[in-house]
Amino acid sequence: MSLSPLPDLMIEPLVRATLMEDLGRAGDITSNALIPEDYKWKASLVARQEGVIAGMDFARLAFTLLDGASQFLPLVADGSFVHAGDVLAHISGRARSLLAAERTAVNFVSHLSGIASVTRKMVEAVKPHKAEICCTRKTTPGLRIVEKYAVRAGGGSNHRFGLDDAVLIKDNHIAVVGDIRAAVHQAREAVGHMVKVELEVDTLEQLEKVLDLPLDAVLLDNMSLEQLTQAVAMVGGRFATEASGRVTLESVASIAATGVDVISVGALTHSSAILDVALDDGF
Amino acid sequence: MSLSPLPDLMIEPLVRATLMEDLGRAGDITSNALIPEDYKWKASLVARQEGVIAGMDFARLAFTLLDGASQFLPLVADGSFVHAGDVLAHISGRARSLLAAERTAVNFVSHLSGIASVTRKMVEAVKPHKAEICCTRKTTPGLRIVEKYAVRAGGGSNHRFGLDDAVLIKDNHIAVVGDIRAAVHQAREAVGHMVKVELEVDTLEQLEKVLDLPLDAVLLDNMSLEQLTQAVAMVGGRFATEASGRVTLESVASIAATGVDVISVGALTHSSAILDVALDDGF
Amino acid sequence: MSLSPLPDLMIEPLVRATLMEDLGRAGDITSNALIPEDYKWKASLVARQEGVIAGMDFARLAFTLLDGASQFLPLVADGSFVHAGDVLAHISGRARSLLAAERTAVNFVSHLSGIASVTRKMVEAVKPHKAEICCTRKTTPGLRIVEKYAVRAGGGSNHRFGLDDAVLIKDNHIAVVGDIRAAVHQAREAVGHMVKVELEVDTLEQLEKVLDLPLDAVLLDNMSLEQLTQAVAMVGGRFATEASGRVTLESVASIAATGVDVISVGALTHSSAILDVALDDGF
Amino acid sequence: MSLSPLPDLMIEPLVRATLMEDLGRAGDITSNALIPEDYKWKASLVARQEGVIAGMDFARLAFTLLDGASQFLPLVADGSFVHAGDVLAHISGRARSLLAAERTAVNFVSHLSGIASVTRKMVEAVKPHKAEICCTRKTTPGLRIVEKYAVRAGGGSNHRFGLDDAVLIKDNHIAVVGDIRAAVHQAREAVGHMVKVELEVDTLEQLEKVLDLPLDAVLLDNMSLEQLTQAVAMVGGRFATEASGRVTLESVASIAATGVDVISVGALTHSSAILDVALDDGF
Amino acid sequence: MSLSPLPDLMIEPLVRATLMEDLGRAGDITSNALIPEDYKWKASLVARQEGVIAGMDFARLAFTLLDGASQFLPLVADGSFVHAGDVLAHISGRARSLLAAERTAVNFVSHLSGIASVTRKMVEAVKPHKAEICCTRKTTPGLRIVEKYAVRAGGGSNHRFGLDDAVLIKDNHIAVVGDIRAAVHQAREAVGHMVKVELEVDTLEQLEKVLDLPLDAVLLDNMSLEQLTQAVAMVGGRFATEASGRVTLESVASIAATGVDVISVGALTHSSAILDVALDDGF
Amino acid sequence: MSLSPLPDLMIEPLVRATLMEDLGRAGDITSNALIPEDYKWKASLVARQEGVIAGMDFARLAFTLLDGASQFLPLVADGSFVHAGDVLAHISGRARSLLAAERTAVNFVSHLSGIASVTRKMVEAVKPHKAEICCTRKTTPGLRIVEKYAVRAGGGSNHRFGLDDAVLIKDNHIAVVGDIRAAVHQAREAVGHMVKVELEVDTLEQLEKVLDLPLDAVLLDNMSLEQLTQAVAMVGGRFATEASGRVTLESVASIAATGVDVISVGALTHSSAILDVALDDGF
Repeated sequence: MSLSPLPDLMIEPLVRATLMEDLGRAGDITSNALIPEDYKWKASLVARQEGVIAGMDFARLAFTLLDGASQFLPLVADGSFVHAGDVLAHISGRARSLLAAERTAVNFVSHLSGIASVTRKMVEAVKPHKAEICCTRKTTPGLRIVEKYAVRAGGGSNHRFGLDDAVLIKDNHIAVVGDIRAAVHQAREAVGHMVKVELEVDTLEQLEKVLDLPLDAVLLDNMSLEQLTQAVAMVGGRFATEASGRVTLESVASIAATGVDVISVGALTHSSAILDVALDDGF
Repeated sequence: MSLSPLPDLMIEPLVRATLMEDLGRAGDITSNALIPEDYKWKASLVARQEGVIAGMDFARLAFTLLDGASQFLPLVADGSFVHAGDVLAHISGRARSLLAAERTAVNFVSHLSGIASVTRKMVEAVKPHKAEICCTRKTTPGLRIVEKYAVRAGGGSNHRFGLDDAVLIKDNHIAVVGDIRAAVHQAREAVGHMVKVELEVDTLEQLEKVLDLPLDAVLLDNMSLEQLTQAVAMVGGRFATEASGRVTLESVASIAATGVDVISVGALTHSSAILDVALDDGF
Repeated sequence: MSLSPLPDLMIEPLVRATLMEDLGRAGDITSNALIPEDYKWKASLVARQEGVIAGMDFARLAFTLLDGASQFLPLVADGSFVHAGDVLAHISGRARSLLAAERTAVNFVSHLSGIASVTRKMVEAVKPHKAEICCTRKTTPGLRIVEKYAVRAGGGSNHRFGLDDAVLIKDNHIAVVGDIRAAVHQAREAVGHMVKVELEVDTLEQLEKVLDLPLDAVLLDNMSLEQLTQAVAMVGGRFATEASGRVTLESVASIAATGVDVISVGALTHSSAILDVALDDGF
Repeated sequence: MSLSPLPDLMIEPLVRATLMEDLGRAGDITSNALIPEDYKWKASLVARQEGVIAGMDFARLAFTLLDGASQFLPLVADGSFVHAGDVLAHISGRARSLLAAERTAVNFVSHLSGIASVTRKMVEAVKPHKAEICCTRKTTPGLRIVEKYAVRAGGGSNHRFGLDDAVLIKDNHIAVVGDIRAAVHQAREAVGHMVKVELEVDTLEQLEKVLDLPLDAVLLDNMSLEQLTQAVAMVGGRFATEASGRVTLESVASIAATGVDVISVGALTHSSAILDVALDDGF
Repeated sequence: MSLSPLPDLMIEPLVRATLMEDLGRAGDITSNALIPEDYKWKASLVARQEGVIAGMDFARLAFTLLDGASQFLPLVADGSFVHAGDVLAHISGRARSLLAAERTAVNFVSHLSGIASVTRKMVEAVKPHKAEICCTRKTTPGLRIVEKYAVRAGGGSNHRFGLDDAVLIKDNHIAVVGDIRAAVHQAREAVGHMVKVELEVDTLEQLEKVLDLPLDAVLLDNMSLEQLTQAVAMVGGRFATEASGRVTLESVASIAATGVDVISVGALTHSSAILDVALDDGF
Repeated sequence: MSLSPLPDLMIEPLVRATLMEDLGRAGDITSNALIPEDYKWKASLVARQEGVIAGMDFARLAFTLLDGASQFLPLVADGSFVHAGDVLAHISGRARSLLAAERTAVNFVSHLSGIASVTRKMVEAVKPHKAEICCTRKTTPGLRIVEKYAVRAGGGSNHRFGLDDAVLIKDNHIAVVGDIRAAVHQAREAVGHMVKVELEVDTLEQLEKVLDLPLDAVLLDNMSLEQLTQAVAMVGGRFATEASGRVTLESVASIAATGVDVISVGALTHSSAILDVALDDGF
């Protein structure tokens, strides 16, 4: 299935705010000082590293929101794997406008492609196991929606988008309510029929106690590979199994081999380096 | 000089938006389902790694904007170096409120502390040379102001905040206007007396041609250590010298040894991993 | 389980906007003309009809956002059943401030209590059957979050909050994709492990074809009581059953008697009359 | 006189916010999962009940703001009376986009048409009397402007838009200031020459005392038909007479027969059921 | 009657935005560099010229929104006449916070007091005639509400707040509709009973034609003193008479002597110089 | 060098808000009542006084944001000198739309042209001296960006845009820190290499003490012509010299003759009268 773009309506305010953050109170004083107002320019958005691209719509909006007369022709789609030197888009228009939007466009594409690229590496690493690579709520402030989109662009899956769209009972909740079984029932009753309920367990003993409960998923936190394997067997398909806890590119394949359904990785969104992307003269 | 906090007025809207991003349309349905409305809780914000802390005000606002009755007692100030296990703050209040704000608070502190920590390492690495470690405009969309603050918390310095507060003439500008000397004069005339003008040069030949111009700084882009040393000598204190181009923790000391005044590092803000920080039960 | 209030953070912007909508560009010119600035007043928020109250926090915010010196003492909690004449809150402060906030406060409480009251009647009507009364996305523009809260205050349950938090495959989707079974599989694969999938079926034949699919719920649209009864039997607990289609207070009990798990009623939010509430002099 | 549309500028922010309220953080995950990105669709907006239409511009904006490539062809204008089955508009474009905007569009049209339809019934009921049917400030939070527009679409008239555009002295004001005659003079002096002043009176005795005052209108609250008739005679055209107080479709004609100029009805905006409208496949 | 303050709710967003406009992206870098974070300061807001003060609440909010720990003690109320050297307020708190808010506070008070002062001069000039001095819609973009407030502080009256709260038929309208009498009837019918209707006339012939129409006011535009006198006589109290057209402090008394009810002066808001106000060390 | 326009992106929100401020909650009720919806009109924006035009883009946006079908053809560019009667633009479209946007468009152009015109007079007055005429932070609340643009349109120069883009050490700062020399060093160290530092001095003695410091500019506040001449000589080109303090059109030439580099004038933005501009029927 192809990756679904986010409607412009959803991302325009963010792109607009990011442009304003860079234009400040006087705009691009360098380009305005040096370049005649109607001087036309052509430029190429180019990958300087190999990886997976995400954020082409953000780049398009950066250029066209700043100047409706700018043209943006994408040459690759989000989710594509590119090599260093690959041209991602041709852009043309007033030189001033393109230079003023350059940093905003590049910052979006390099940040989101960084996330997509790391996700893709994880996704490749777990093949041929069935495990999905999934992000968490450990996202950069203000970018929850777009970073989760970047994870999808990399072939990953999304966990909860917020505190409100699914129940995840964690250790601190149990610390408060005490009775783990009561907690699950209580949660199940408190939410509507379209809301899933997941429980975090840290030990196989905890897991044992909840196998008959109306859960949709269980989060196996910081378990060893042996524990994970055993947990998957214990669950026996009753509900989804999710492994988490400092997963790395090195460890992810062995985790997938335990048979878990989902591996969630906070680092996809909180610690990915950018994919190097730049705007070059001409095309 | 101590690090100056950003006024709450400047950061409240961002913290508020980030809380809303997590609360979504139904709020924290898990805590609401499991924890009595007035159940009180105490928790500690704890560093899981050593590094430099930034973002304590963001954490305070996350907890207190969500619930004015929550108490946040900071135990370390932004800019402090902490070790794994150090407690950063004591937080108390309604358990529901604290759990609902937890992720927002932790996401801010871990992201900003990640930037501050990498900055500090660079700053330490260049000692005893005079070079300042400086960030760029390669910041995460929407977080320009706060990431530049995090760089300051790490002991770094800030370059331009946007396209509008200083002139930086880059290769693309020269490509358009042709005459490098004319460009500098043109820029100098176009802006007010409180605005600095910097010129990017890629070769010593270019530098030679501009030594007598009314510049405030020169950006020596992607030069070798030998070239940098020679450039610094050529400039002879006429204006500030700034080195840039894929600077790493490994290379930064030798760059500083060339005598440049400033070393700018995009990776501080575009590719720093988080500093691991968490909310633990009790204090 | 007690009803969880929405954090002030989530509702303040709406209350603030609604106050501004009434204050316009010159404020309350009548009270300003007639009442001395510091004249104090006491008033009571009173129910003029019996029903279920919802929106007390909105009323509190209306009064206190307009004037921080106003006092609002709630005497009943959201979700309470009240009779005509019951006092809901005591309010005191500057007369001008209370009168300027009166309409905003009353409009919120009467609208939300209207929804809660109708919901409660439906909930009572289906007892002792297990069916939950559930709202839809047919909410008043701009009030999705708060109307769904009012449904909960009336004892009802919430369906999807938007297009994004669960999959609901409807007739138009099937019209496009053709193959109903393929559609379910496609949807299941496209979304994360924390997202539920529901399918709308209009006939028992359609239902028959999907009984073995990985669905979380089935929406039985506009079926007769006989069909519903049969559908519930066919599903046999494999997934949740939801009945919908012009449900009224008269018909809801018989629908519940068919054994469906959920009955969804658009009219709860799109056509509820207000509960009559007013601000009376003194307390 | 034809009904004047509200400029798009005035309603776009509301439509945009309502779309976002439904799209949430991941957009229309069902349509995205099932329907190819460029699959085209045609649909008709259809009335399921007879009544007066209002809100066609809101529907147009819902579809076209979400996707600029969507086409919306209105077949009826706001203020038109339609029958069940009448097609209101033809819409075409990407199926995904149309389905994602459907609920927003329908919620606006059904809510506003509900108000317009009830208004029209009242307006028809008072013919051939001169009385205008008028709304109040008892509007749904956030929708003051648009609900008052819907009243106009139904042939009704608008009372004050807020606390600031006219003076209305009510019982609580009199309770505070004591002297009813002084209050009117005070109000008249406090406001500019373009602001009208209305006084609420509950008895004929009160009315008697104010007949010589510089009033623009008098609000006859909760009076019997006999009292209203007498009040109209007493006023004798000096200023406008307005009747209010739980007016129903049943009682409105007799109230109009008393000769009052205006009948104000809060229920038009606070308790109207929707007019049933839906999006059907094809056209 | 005392001047009614605008609720903080109405002006806070503007003060907040104005503070942000000055703080920019890094805050007050000068004060932060030089003054210790907790250094306390006392300062006085002082008038450097005589005139009428308006905007004290804006100053209070500028200081206290930037830092909740700042104290603002007003010594004069809006509408007061002050002399050069008069202290308007005592302010104390962190020096950094006071200096960072200084310009915002002073800009508001000096701008609004400038308007109030010019208004007051006009108001004094027309005594003992009954004419009210009234502003227009020629206000500074974004400041309609607050500049009209400043006019009231100066003892002036407000004309329409916008295009929507009263009808004013001007020459361009007549040019289009042709028939001046028809236009008045058409307008009267199109609006609710709480909306006033004013007609602009440029000649006595035009005035003659409309004397029997249901108007609330007539705008006598650019008429000579003789024409105004005659116009007032012709109108004979049927409706309010308003004179306008390049009114100056020199001409206003003679205009008032013609007996008009209102004199409207665009220059009050579009061309008033500031009243010089400053923040001095200590109190 | 030609004046650089501000990107629409930067000014649209302000124009939109100003239109809404005038449209209020019901729009242009006069035009709606009198003019058929599709009646077309042509109008000219005309200068009634000679001066320098600024704000043509604001006028264009006022008309076209209100109605995308309106046409705006500018006949002069910002920065042009025009005479009374000169036509600035031809506008055509629906009469209702043009009339509804008229006041917003005219208010922007007349306010900004007023500033540009006064600036130009000052700029002309100082010729042939080198002194630049410069604005301050004494701008109208909310209009910092656009008023500074108007100053540029008049040929003037811009000082700081806010507290954050340059250091300006003033008397109050010195009062707190005591040591003037230490203050300059402290400031220089606290800010990045792209930030300028200016010091205010009130006497030649103060100036004497700081001549060897790393300053970029010195603000000579309220000095006599003799003092200014001497100060310029003392500085000897080490850094820029700026004169300030109640500069008038009468005094500015003699100030320029002292040889200062910059003359800053608060009155440009805080006390300029408008340039009279109007919308006339036809073209």
